[in-house]
Amino acid sequence: MSKSEPALTQCPIACTLERVGDGWTFLILRDASRGLTRFDQFQSSLGVAPNILTKRLGALVDNGLLEKRAYSSRPPRYDYLLTDMGRDFGGVLTAMLAFGARHFAAEGAAGQLVDRVTGRAAEPVLVDRVSGKPITATDFIYRAGPQPLDATPVVAERPKG
Amino acid sequence: MSKSEPALTQCPIACTLERVGDGWTFLILRDASRGLTRFDQFQSSLGVAPNILTKRLGALVDNGLLEKRAYSSRPPRYDYLLTDMGRDFGGVLTAMLAFGARHFAAEGAAGQLVDRVTGRAAEPVLVDRVSGKPITATDFIYRAGPQPLDATPVVAERPKG
Repeated sequence: MSKSEPALTQCPIACTLERVGDGWTFLILRDASRGLTRFDQFQSSLGVAPNILTKRLGALVDNGLLEKRAYSSRPPRYDYLLTDMGRDFGGVLTAMLAFGARHFAAEGAAGQLVDRVTGRAAEPVLVDRVSGKPITATDFIYRAGPQPLDATPVVAERPKG
Repeated sequence: MSKSEPALTQCPIACTLERVGDGWTFLILRDASRGLTRFDQFQSSLGVAPNILTKRLGALVDNGLLEKRAYSSRPPRYDYLLTDMGRDFGGVLTAMLAFGARHFAAEGAAGQLVDRVTGRAAEPVLVDRVSGKPITATDFIYRAGPQPLDATPVVAERPKG
């Protein structure tokens, strides 16, 4: 994708994808959210080539989702820690976890979020924090900001066919 | 990413990324959620090369997120319509929209979800549908399913140190 496309750079989804628009990057953030912090841990979890992992970790640091902190100077070794922005990305990962658990369980997509106290499986849904209303195309529409892309709904009803 | 990595194929997030783990694919689904259905509409919105768009649309059909329906036989022309699964992916896009609007507004990431009736900007948060509790690392943990990857929290507190 080209960063120079104005339609892409003004949309909050596209702005996010510019930083995280790659499968490895999502999985690094997934693993960081699970508590992994070190190069070797990510490599062992993901089975990713070292040069790719180096590039993706560097981009996540440059883009403000991870922070690099030395834990050893000889040899130089680093922890990669989620920043506030990186932790906030957990909401996107949780939405993806819920989607995957709903649709791919038949092929062994295991795992779910459970209530820490009761052990009951969570059913994550997006709601408006203030009104508590579920975010649906019936109740919410997408409105362009000061630099509008357009004003059509981001979640629309299925077009009549 | 390799589909053969067992750790990747058993995680709901990785299963999702196998279908949607590419920036163009996310943006096609964004535009489909806004009501776009035709090849030319996607191409004009995204500025993407036709061969890439053809591949991505075909993969979305193969993976069950879009359905291809002929609207003209001479010449052959198709609408690409969201399936139930594709519409359900709207939750991931909304989480990404909220994340992008929170973090990239300063660089012109315009647009927000507003209440259709009141016009008030929504603040999308993930909650458990049954209990209404916000999905946080304090209250919810990730538990592996019948084919466990591991049982560490998918949303963990920042590691100490």
